[in-house]
Amino acid sequence: MHLTDERTGLEYIPRDECLELLRLRSLGRIGVVVAGRPVVLPINYTVDGGSIVFRTDVGTKFDAAVRGEFVAFEIDDADPNYHTGWSVLLTGVAEEIIDAEERRRAEMLPLRPWAPGAKSHYLRITPVTISGRRIAEPAADS
Amino acid sequence: MHLTDERTGLEYIPRDECLELLRLRSLGRIGVVVAGRPVVLPINYTVDGGSIVFRTDVGTKFDAAVRGEFVAFEIDDADPNYHTGWSVLLTGVAEEIIDAEERRRAEMLPLRPWAPGAKSHYLRITPVTISGRRIAEPAADS
Repeated sequence: MHLTDERTGLEYIPRDECLELLRLRSLGRIGVVVAGRPVVLPINYTVDGGSIVFRTDVGTKFDAAVRGEFVAFEIDDADPNYHTGWSVLLTGVAEEIIDAEERRRAEMLPLRPWAPGAKSHYLRITPVTISGRRIAEPAADS
Repeated sequence: MHLTDERTGLEYIPRDECLELLRLRSLGRIGVVVAGRPVVLPINYTVDGGSIVFRTDVGTKFDAAVRGEFVAFEIDDADPNYHTGWSVLLTGVAEEIIDAEERRRAEMLPLRPWAPGAKSHYLRITPVTISGRRIAEPAADS
């Protein structure tokens, strides 16, 4: 059984399935607030024990914007020809992995940074909310 | 000739090419600030005269979060096997199209909403900034 948002016609994706979709992908987008304004950037990530792990470069604006901050993380997919698609949105605080043992474990993860560069910080987003939506039927108009 | 960010190794995509990439796609992600926190959601969009046009449902949280607000808009693509990819980030204020003539023109655009539903608002993001980055070479490590 699937629950559907009656107003939008979008089907809710259960949390377990959201996590499964997150595990199947490696490219997402992170949303952060910088000086009160939203910024969205692509990141490569991996799922580690229910949280999102990614790498950033020390000393970058991006690194400063995400460390210790409440962030949004999104993945999606769509087939424009058939008007099908889904998206998963996760929110949480991005914290650096500083514990030596945990850091060593993070270095073993199948995690490729989006861009070349040192990327010597490992950050973890522990989810506070996870939600997913799927387009359940063709749009009525257009 | 392509300019490259020496620190990250990412190649800058010129503005004209960013606009061309925007024209070739129809699914992007919008980043907004809601109660001080970032939210990222997928939207279907079209490019109209150098600006981004999309539809929202009246009275939704999303509609309220984007109308008249400074937003971020992102598209990207990646081939994880070859570690190639690019992203375009645009920022600007999202304003409703209220002029009757402009609204009629917007209704003729090839614009399919992400989700079923009335979607009776047309919004336009007039870009303040447009920037693009491309992964120019394989990552040195991992």
